[in-house]
Amino acid sequence: MAKEDKLFIGVDLGGTNIQAGIVNLRGKVLAKAKKKTKADNGTEKVVDRICDTCLDAMEEAGLSIKDISALGIGAPGATDSEKGVVIEAVNLRWNNYPLAKTLKNKLNLPVVVDNDVNVGAWGEYQVGAGKKQDNMMAVFIGTGIGGGLILNGNLYQGTYGTAGEIGHVVLRSDAPLGRRTLENLASRSAIVNLITNLVKANHPSIITDLCNGDLSNIRSKMIKQAVEEKDDLVCRVVQEACHYVGVAAAGMVTMLSLPCVVLGGGLTEALGPKVIEWTRKSFDDTVFPSKLKNCKIVEAQLGDDAGLVGAALLAADRLKA
Amino acid sequence: MAKEDKLFIGVDLGGTNIQAGIVNLRGKVLAKAKKKTKADNGTEKVVDRICDTCLDAMEEAGLSIKDISALGIGAPGATDSEKGVVIEAVNLRWNNYPLAKTLKNKLNLPVVVDNDVNVGAWGEYQVGAGKKQDNMMAVFIGTGIGGGLILNGNLYQGTYGTAGEIGHVVLRSDAPLGRRTLENLASRSAIVNLITNLVKANHPSIITDLCNGDLSNIRSKMIKQAVEEKDDLVCRVVQEACHYVGVAAAGMVTMLSLPCVVLGGGLTEALGPKVIEWTRKSFDDTVFPSKLKNCKIVEAQLGDDAGLVGAALLAADRLKA
Repeated sequence: MAKEDKLFIGVDLGGTNIQAGIVNLRGKVLAKAKKKTKADNGTEKVVDRICDTCLDAMEEAGLSIKDISALGIGAPGATDSEKGVVIEAVNLRWNNYPLAKTLKNKLNLPVVVDNDVNVGAWGEYQVGAGKKQDNMMAVFIGTGIGGGLILNGNLYQGTYGTAGEIGHVVLRSDAPLGRRTLENLASRSAIVNLITNLVKANHPSIITDLCNGDLSNIRSKMIKQAVEEKDDLVCRVVQEACHYVGVAAAGMVTMLSLPCVVLGGGLTEALGPKVIEWTRKSFDDTVFPSKLKNCKIVEAQLGDDAGLVGAALLAADRLKA
Repeated sequence: MAKEDKLFIGVDLGGTNIQAGIVNLRGKVLAKAKKKTKADNGTEKVVDRICDTCLDAMEEAGLSIKDISALGIGAPGATDSEKGVVIEAVNLRWNNYPLAKTLKNKLNLPVVVDNDVNVGAWGEYQVGAGKKQDNMMAVFIGTGIGGGLILNGNLYQGTYGTAGEIGHVVLRSDAPLGRRTLENLASRSAIVNLITNLVKANHPSIITDLCNGDLSNIRSKMIKQAVEEKDDLVCRVVQEACHYVGVAAAGMVTMLSLPCVVLGGGLTEALGPKVIEWTRKSFDDTVFPSKLKNCKIVEAQLGDDAGLVGAALLAADRLKA
C-alpha cells in the first residue's frame, strides 16, 4: 500500500459523546460513527464503547483492523501524550488512566492520546484554516473556551501537558470572581447568562420572542438570528465577548509572535464573520508590535470533525506512518 | 584547545551603554569592558565603539582575536537572528541593519545577533536561575518590562522574531490608555509615577525624606528602603505592581504550562524576596490548573551580566562551538 493510501482511526472522546472516523493522510473522513459516552457506567464500559464506535466506523467504511495503520484519540482533560495517559478528565472521573495501552491491547493498533482541544488545533494546522502556519493558535469558543498551540510546526504541550488553556487566562483580575477569565467573559455560557440577566432586567431584545419567552432555552442559532437582525442588546453582548477574545488573542500573539489565530467552536460557527470582525478590532487595538496586525484571524474549517481528523493525523505524525 | 576552554565575547548593546565580556562555556566572565553607545553619532560610529569595547575586554583578559571562538550580541530591538539583522532598534534608529555581517567583517569572528532580553533569558537558562528548566520564562522589570521564553530547550522567537514582549501584554483593556499594559502597571517608571502622584496628593510617605523632597529623584534604592521600613504608601504601590506581574505570569504559565518563571531586572534586584513573595500571591490566585502552583518563581542570578553572558553562550550554542 502506498503511503498516501494509509488509513487511520481518529476518535473524539467527549464527556457526552464518542465520535470515531476513518481518516486518510489528506484529512478526508471516509466514514464516521457516534455513540453516547455514558461516563456514569464506569471506565471499563466507556472503553468498550470507544472500541465499539471504532468498529462501527470501520464497518461503515467496509474495512477491518488490518486496513488501519494507527489510532489517535483526543480526551477531554490533561494528558501525558508521551506515556499515553489521561492525567485527569473530570467529566469521565479519570485519573492517570493508561488509555493508549488499554486501547492498544483491545484493538491491536498503535495508539496516540492527546487533549481534545490540542488535537482539534492539530487538525486545523494540518488540513484546515491554519495550513502551512508553523506557528499558530487555535481558540475554540463553545460552552467553555479551549485553545491549542502549534509552535515551530509541533503541537506544544508544555511541561505538564496542559498548554493552551486560554479560557482560564485572567483578563480582569480586579473583577468579581466568575467575571475574570476569558471563559467567564466570552464563552457561550457567559453570553447566554449576560443576555438572560439583561432581559430579566427589562432591557428589550428580540431574543425574548425567538426563544418563545423561555430564556432557559436560548440556543446558538437564536443568538445568530438576533445578531443578523441587528438586535441591539444581543449585538452588544456578543461584541463585548469578542472584545475579550481579541484582547486575549493579542496578549498571546504579542508574547509568541504568531502569524495566525484560528477561531472555531460552536459559537464561532454560528456567528461566523461577525466574530472575526469584532475580535479583529480589539486585537488590532491591543497587539504589539504593530507589525503583528498582519497576524491572520480566520474561521476554523473542519467544524465538528476537527477533533477526530486531528487525532487521526496526530497518530500518523507521531508514528511517522 | 579542549572544548571546555573555548572563549566567547558577549556584548550587551543598549541605547546608553555597550558592555562586552570574555565568557567561557560555564558562563564565567573573565574580563569586562564598557563604553557609552553614543547613538547620536550614527550607526558607523556605534559599530566602531562596539568593536573597541570588545578589543578592550580582550586586552583586559590578555587575549587576542585568535583566542576567541565567536561573538554574541544582544541588541535593543526586534532581530532576525537567522539573518543576523536588527530589524528595528528605536533607540539606535536602526532599521534592517545587518549587524552580524558588519561585525564579522570587522572582527573576523562568527557573530550571532539576538534581542537583548532574549539573550538575558538564555543566560539565566544556561547558567543562572533557570538552569535545567527546558521550559521557562524570564521577566526583567526595570524602566520598562521585557521578557524571554525558553521552550523545549530552545530560545523561542516566533515568526516575526518579537516573542517575549510581556511588557506590552494588555492586562486592563478597560482602563485609560497608559494604564493598560503590564509595563504601564508594573515597571519602575510606573511605580515611580504612582508614588509621585500619591505624594503630590498629600498622602504621607517616608519617600519624601529619602529623596530630600525632590520627587524627580526617586531611585530604586529609595524604594527598597521604603519597603524595608514598611512605608505604607510605597508598599501598597509596589505590591499592586507585583500583583500585575503575578497575573501576567500566571496567564503565560496557564497558556504555556511552564515549570519556572525567573524574575530579574533592576527593580527586582533592589527589592528581592518581597517581589517574589507578592508576585507569587497573585500568581497562585490566578494560574490554572492548580497543579501549576508548583511552578517556581525565582530571582534571576546573573544581574547586570545576564545579557553579555547569555549572548556569549547563545553564540556558542548556535555555532555548536
